[in-house]
Amino acid sequence: MAMEEIRRGEMLYEGKAKQLYTCNLPDCYVMFYKDDATAFDGKKKAKISGKGALNNAISAIFFEMLQQAGVPTHHVRKLSENESLVRKVDLFPLEVIVRNLVAGSMAKRLGLQEGTPLRHPTVEFDYKSDPLGDPLVTEEQVAVLGWATEEEVDEMRRLALRVNDVLSADLLRRNVLLVDFKLEFGKDTDGQIVVADEISPDTCRFWDVQTHAKLDKDRFRRDMGGVEEAYQEMLHRLGGVLA
Amino acid sequence: MAMEEIRRGEMLYEGKAKQLYTCNLPDCYVMFYKDDATAFDGKKKAKISGKGALNNAISAIFFEMLQQAGVPTHHVRKLSENESLVRKVDLFPLEVIVRNLVAGSMAKRLGLQEGTPLRHPTVEFDYKSDPLGDPLVTEEQVAVLGWATEEEVDEMRRLALRVNDVLSADLLRRNVLLVDFKLEFGKDTDGQIVVADEISPDTCRFWDVQTHAKLDKDRFRRDMGGVEEAYQEMLHRLGGVLA
Repeated sequence: MAMEEIRRGEMLYEGKAKQLYTCNLPDCYVMFYKDDATAFDGKKKAKISGKGALNNAISAIFFEMLQQAGVPTHHVRKLSENESLVRKVDLFPLEVIVRNLVAGSMAKRLGLQEGTPLRHPTVEFDYKSDPLGDPLVTEEQVAVLGWATEEEVDEMRRLALRVNDVLSADLLRRNVLLVDFKLEFGKDTDGQIVVADEISPDTCRFWDVQTHAKLDKDRFRRDMGGVEEAYQEMLHRLGGVLA
Repeated sequence: MAMEEIRRGEMLYEGKAKQLYTCNLPDCYVMFYKDDATAFDGKKKAKISGKGALNNAISAIFFEMLQQAGVPTHHVRKLSENESLVRKVDLFPLEVIVRNLVAGSMAKRLGLQEGTPLRHPTVEFDYKSDPLGDPLVTEEQVAVLGWATEEEVDEMRRLALRVNDVLSADLLRRNVLLVDFKLEFGKDTDGQIVVADEISPDTCRFWDVQTHAKLDKDRFRRDMGGVEEAYQEMLHRLGGVLA
């Protein structure tokens, strides 16, 4: 894609942490990362200065890492501090969670100790709905309810585990444990399933390998302080700098 | 098994709706059906006179139907109004739910209309825990957390769908729609996986085919009245009588 000037058009969608705009390139959108932080399906809210730029930079690094490894994503390139150019995709109404260790909602729902390692990574599908609290659904329910076909579910599961392999291995070299993460998938205009949305401390749990210090949004969810510093530390460990 | 006199021994376990006793036969227990009704993980409680006897009679009919169809169960025979003889099994800590139409927790969790038909029956596994509210788990989580092996999960799924086929077809002839039901599975002393617990209006949703009148525990959960009458009607439609 030529490095011509990108002009942002109308806002198509505003989510809790990002805005999506049309632009002058066909089949592309501009994703704008906001400084807004929310948790618990939007019930807890705050502004964290610099968060948008940090997530944009971190996401771009992860998406480029995945593309290098042959995993298709919606990412085209970072445009500015808070903006990235992405390909237009039709999102599935699903959150795809990969877990390496027990944490967060899994610990709470099943009464398990946070940090318990899992014998192998697990993939789960949550139905994306704030009012319903993003409920867990079985892969069979996803297909029966028409949210994705069986083949699409299988492809998302396969890609999610590939993403886990690629990111876990890279992060371990940077002394970061990838505890779990949430992906969203979409179908591009050619019908290919690609990783979409963002991959950042808002959507992953990152722990320091030695100390298990949290370098992610749990610092905000659990009022631990040092949120921006943790996101900066993650960008630093990834070898990135703010544009 | 010879029809020798069964003598009940000590109580091994008391659940919300049943008690389990040792007896003088090897590898067998006596299951006693109580009149206690509970809902919402034990938060709502009442006594419904005659319920124990009705569930015992209905369960025996269903278990015999399954055995005729070649589905292994823990059931040996009905002993008295409130008692049945069952084989000793090691229960999995799981509830296995089969659904033909959307109802109950599925409707609530996913914001779907109760009564929506599913394109094909679905099977889900819940982790049996009252304090946790019997949370849904994926089949992969069941295996990773060691609650059953992958092969055992597959076998429970296969048996649960067989149970659905056998009971749905029979009930339809009796003008009853099998909306959904919960099974528990155990492993007998030979290591075979068998259907255990009970199969009754306490553990199934039964709707009249024409009117969709509820003939099950939802009448109690939802304070609709006519609970005992509904259970009696189910026994009647199954051609059974109280001993």
